[in-house]
Amino acid sequence: MTIIEIIEKKKNNLILSKEEIDFFISGMLKGEIADYQISSLLMAIVLNGMNEEETFYLTDAMIRSGETIDLSSIEGIKVDKHSTGGVGDKVTLILAPLLASFGLKVAKMSGRGLGHTGGTADKLESIPGYRLELSQEEFINQVNEIGVSVISQSGNLVPADKKLYALRDVTGTVDSIPLIASSIMSKKIASGADVIFIDVKVGNGALMKKIEDARKLANTMIHIGNRYHKKTICILTNMEEPLGYAIGNALEVQESISALKGMGPEDVMELIIKTTGLIVSSVSDLSLEEAEQQCFKKFNTGQAFEKFRQMVSFQGGDLEKLEISNRIFSVRSAKSGYISHIDALGLGEIARKIGAGRLKKEDQIHYQVGLVLTHKVGDFIEVNEELLKIYLDDKDVKVNEILECFTIQEDEVEKQPLIYEIIK
Amino acid sequence: MTIIEIIEKKKNNLILSKEEIDFFISGMLKGEIADYQISSLLMAIVLNGMNEEETFYLTDAMIRSGETIDLSSIEGIKVDKHSTGGVGDKVTLILAPLLASFGLKVAKMSGRGLGHTGGTADKLESIPGYRLELSQEEFINQVNEIGVSVISQSGNLVPADKKLYALRDVTGTVDSIPLIASSIMSKKIASGADVIFIDVKVGNGALMKKIEDARKLANTMIHIGNRYHKKTICILTNMEEPLGYAIGNALEVQESISALKGMGPEDVMELIIKTTGLIVSSVSDLSLEEAEQQCFKKFNTGQAFEKFRQMVSFQGGDLEKLEISNRIFSVRSAKSGYISHIDALGLGEIARKIGAGRLKKEDQIHYQVGLVLTHKVGDFIEVNEELLKIYLDDKDVKVNEILECFTIQEDEVEKQPLIYEIIK
Repeated sequence: MTIIEIIEKKKNNLILSKEEIDFFISGMLKGEIADYQISSLLMAIVLNGMNEEETFYLTDAMIRSGETIDLSSIEGIKVDKHSTGGVGDKVTLILAPLLASFGLKVAKMSGRGLGHTGGTADKLESIPGYRLELSQEEFINQVNEIGVSVISQSGNLVPADKKLYALRDVTGTVDSIPLIASSIMSKKIASGADVIFIDVKVGNGALMKKIEDARKLANTMIHIGNRYHKKTICILTNMEEPLGYAIGNALEVQESISALKGMGPEDVMELIIKTTGLIVSSVSDLSLEEAEQQCFKKFNTGQAFEKFRQMVSFQGGDLEKLEISNRIFSVRSAKSGYISHIDALGLGEIARKIGAGRLKKEDQIHYQVGLVLTHKVGDFIEVNEELLKIYLDDKDVKVNEILECFTIQEDEVEKQPLIYEIIK
Repeated sequence: MTIIEIIEKKKNNLILSKEEIDFFISGMLKGEIADYQISSLLMAIVLNGMNEEETFYLTDAMIRSGETIDLSSIEGIKVDKHSTGGVGDKVTLILAPLLASFGLKVAKMSGRGLGHTGGTADKLESIPGYRLELSQEEFINQVNEIGVSVISQSGNLVPADKKLYALRDVTGTVDSIPLIASSIMSKKIASGADVIFIDVKVGNGALMKKIEDARKLANTMIHIGNRYHKKTICILTNMEEPLGYAIGNALEVQESISALKGMGPEDVMELIIKTTGLIVSSVSDLSLEEAEQQCFKKFNTGQAFEKFRQMVSFQGGDLEKLEISNRIFSVRSAKSGYISHIDALGLGEIARKIGAGRLKKEDQIHYQVGLVLTHKVGDFIEVNEELLKIYLDDKDVKVNEILECFTIQEDEVEKQPLIYEIIK
């Protein structure tokens, strides 16, 4: 067996065996397969695809490439979640403590971000003192004690994915359902939870542009989850505008705290309540409606926020010290009308440029900067009315670039639903 | 413009512009594009193809990547030829002097070989003293004086092809009509001849397995040739068995000398006469039949061989010193019947193993070793009758491996034609 034979096989649209996929992943990690051979095979996979069996074997080989987290010493039902990535997506910050307030266990590892804003790990780090790196023991003890911990991802979790992702990023081989599914699911399976919830974003700003592709990705991931006896739930959501109002690390923590108190933006609340309802009803006697209703109780009694406060405090963070930049600029609308489109990626890129995100791994994030929208798609805005606030520090921004992210029209706008589909 | 955008475009089956193709080739040569990006793009080209315009732009960018040979100081019509590669293919050794005996000019650069046996350059080097490296001036003077010279390929001819070919070889991206056509034609155009003749081999042992693909390749190359105002002629020939009887460097020189005297194997003579007829009739007043008839005169009067002798002697070689190994073994048939198939690639691989060819660039060729068939497909053979002779030196060979290259059956065999089609 040689890597060239394997490449030729996939190029000729044939099905790779478990042995061939194992040979590829282990040879790659041993450094026996050159990067130019890996990328050639990746492009053949992008164009010719992989069936469910191959995708499962790929995921499995990736899981076996590194360490897997043993959560068996945590009592109760362990829940993990993932989002394929959106601008303003602060769902983990809200969902993790909320699920813990229902008695579920959330032992979650989150990545740092590349692109528009930081990842969940970066957002939490905007809270002064918050420790992202706990020992395995501290992590498990905390989850046993208060039900929730969010830490940064272990360096040795699925090293094959790190290697593949770095290459995919620079060889035009990102958009492949089997490659995306195996990348996400290998990390989720290796992280050890019993229930896996995945938010697949759909739209121009997302990896999946079309609902059919998003559905296919969801089904592929559910198939993989089932092979490992993990309850896997996918939700397909609209990513045509940013989620909520805030974009930027500390700003998103602030908005998440409002949401945990039941006062977050309408779209954030809808997504959080639907997600929590789905997860809780799938592992308890509560119906979907009952579980959704319970969310309001968790917000109103302060139980949801209390879990967040506990987590931050257990991990050394001090919420009192959370800071937002005080160099605030207001961008006003140049005309009046209905907002028909907000370019999420465009705003994300602006947020990155002012320091909220990274382009390279080494870039330093400015936690206090970001954007806060005052309107969402469908809203009517008057000329000269505030469109958004910018929180800056030392990096500048071009106002016209911001205005170009908004499309404003005379006619009323029919708003797209936030949640397209639930697949489980 | 970035290489990732170009990869994405070809991945999405879009047409690349001249500027994008130039960016790719020049970026590659400047070392600004990583090998893993090149191979990813190559696989996208293999799977999504390139139209004639893109293939022309690719060829043109490759030609501009290095030096081009100026043959304008050679008087008369300059002819070049190429074969896509076959076991026992010694056509250049015969055709070049034969064409010179017609008054045509053959200023030919040939490569060394990787694989079963050496390339034309290696075969000539089996003649003691033969100098493959002439100065540009010596080369041109010799062609002006005697009409023919075969030297090794200039180091700086189409460096982009060298780079691409080395990567294609190890990334499963060899079999692509636009990549093959641009590789061949860039070198032929850069070599400066007026008439380009290409023998496209078809069959299991060849790059083109199917006649339709071979036809497509031929048409692509003719299109490119026309863009440079070069008369381009392609011939599609059967590569299901070795060409002639001899496989191995000095052995093929010996067989070529017989052919130049009109006494070569039937298939070799057929191919040489048809090829010469096509080329000569396309640039002179002679009809195809007249040109073919003239070949016999060139053989019988000794003019064809004389040109070969002159070339060897001008380049320092001594034909008297040509040596063949005297460790000869005879392999005899294990059964009687009609030979229905001879595995050309299998025999080529055996020839390589005993030293006639290289696996790596650094490998040393043993010029005196090789195989000589005594029968061809369609022949009847008795049990225990000689099937072929092996000329060995220090490397051993397995007899069963040789016997497995021959298929012998009871029923008579209908022989396939040698020449399938002529495209011009």
